[in-house]
Amino acid sequence: MKRNTLQERIGNTLRKRRETKGVSQEAFADQVHMHRTYYSAIERGEKNLTLSTLTRVCSGLGAPIWEVMKEAEN
Amino acid sequence: MKRNTLQERIGNTLRKRRETKGVSQEAFADQVHMHRTYYSAIERGEKNLTLSTLTRVCSGLGAPIWEVMKEAEN
Repeated sequence: MKRNTLQERIGNTLRKRRETKGVSQEAFADQVHMHRTYYSAIERGEKNLTLSTLTRVCSGLGAPIWEVMKEAEN
Repeated sequence: MKRNTLQERIGNTLRKRRETKGVSQEAFADQVHMHRTYYSAIERGEKNLTLSTLTRVCSGLGAPIWEVMKEAEN
């Protein structure tokens, strides 16, 4: 386990991928039908995500979950 | 999306990996401190797992989460 928790590392990975797409947090939250404060807490690593939420976010980013997990775990 | 849901495919992947280790469902559930009926529901794909539960199960199997996800998503 690295210095940050897995939740935090996933949040960082999601943020980086969203920013690479040039989409704001608010626009992305709208796109995946989440409240922007909830989505912002995900990026801050404050949520113990369920598979269904992770699926929704990764679909919005056009990324397989395993790719996001691999980036966050390594 | 394949015929089965992601939950089911993850359950199948976990079951296959547990069986490869020659550990019973009951012994594995004990090892990861879960009730055996709960763990058995995970393998049947009936649980919308959280990251923390997935972490606990994958640690017990000695597998990174991304590897399990990759097997289940592909």
